Amino acid sequence: MKKFEEKTIRTETIYDGKVVKLQVDDVTLPDGKTSKRELIKHAGAVGIIPITKDHKIVFVEQYRKPLEKSLVEIPAGKLEEGEDPLVTALRELEEETGYTASSPKFITSFYTSPGFADEIMYLYMAKDLEPIEHPAAGDDDEFIELIELTLDEAKQYVKDKKIHDAKTNYAILYLQTLERM
Amino acid sequence: MKKFEEKTIRTETIYDGKVVKLQVDDVTLPDGKTSKRELIKHAGAVGIIPITKDHKIVFVEQYRKPLEKSLVEIPAGKLEEGEDPLVTALRELEEETGYTASSPKFITSFYTSPGFADEIMYLYMAKDLEPIEHPAAGDDDEFIELIELTLDEAKQYVKDKKIHDAKTNYAILYLQTLERM
Repeated sequence: MKKFEEKTIRTETIYDGKVVKLQVDDVTLPDGKTSKRELIKHAGAVGIIPITKDHKIVFVEQYRKPLEKSLVEIPAGKLEEGEDPLVTALRELEEETGYTASSPKFITSFYTSPGFADEIMYLYMAKDLEPIEHPAAGDDDEFIELIELTLDEAKQYVKDKKIHDAKTNYAILYLQTLERM
Repeated sequence: MKKFEEKTIRTETIYDGKVVKLQVDDVTLPDGKTSKRELIKHAGAVGIIPITKDHKIVFVEQYRKPLEKSLVEIPAGKLEEGEDPLVTALRELEEETGYTASSPKFITSFYTSPGFADEIMYLYMAKDLEPIEHPAAGDDDEFIELIELTLDEAKQYVKDKKIHDAKTNYAILYLQTLERM
């Protein structure tokens, strides 16, 4: 048995959508008592830090309906079923920015909200971007504006909370620790 | 009008639980077309990086039902309604570790999954921890083990994916960039 394992007694699927699935599990706790767990199932996602040849970071600004405001973030997207995260990273880079890169570097991965969701995010960095003449189009319902910023400008966006999400905060801190971009 | 705003035509609450609320909105997109958005509403959360007087970081290991495994994380917890995040941070520190601190430092905040959830996480750091003789008990359904690690040991946990979530990854990277703990 795994440490502190919570055994599932009963699973109820409340909603099975395009982005999330919500299920509520009745579980047995390590002390034998029971409890309920609300669980969001998600396919996983990829984020990519794109860096141009003149050392600017390419961000995307888009409206985030859960927050009812737009955020400036690094390009990101959901994994298709069974897809290698690197393939997702290159697709999102092309669709959202019109750039490609020959060899994105894997940086890290993390669960975004392990208390209630199983979403995992794979983070990549791509240097020496090349523009694509006819990039693939993104989703019909995505409206995106590109913003290229120096690291110092990006840090100001963090201060102003225009950059304000886990993967992008992590990206900025990561870049700040590199000696040069 | 906000940039790229998506106007809500109709909101349907699918589930209103203890931790999450799921709603599905019909929206008008900037080009006039319509789409659906699946939105997780969450009260927000706090994470705290606790550092002992002998420069060890205090982590908690607990079973994360969404992942069906235990993770090692910094202490964290959900905001009560209208609560100052600093109060939440000190409560979770006491309940989960049995320590207190006089002046936790606010580090940053971030949305954990802005594509589908409105959860915001406030991150603090607390140095010079003091043990509490009779700490308040945590939630009935939380089973936690404490692990004190040096920064180097914590980095090994990251490599082994025993540390593998956004706030804790961020915490390790943040500590790594400080000259000394």
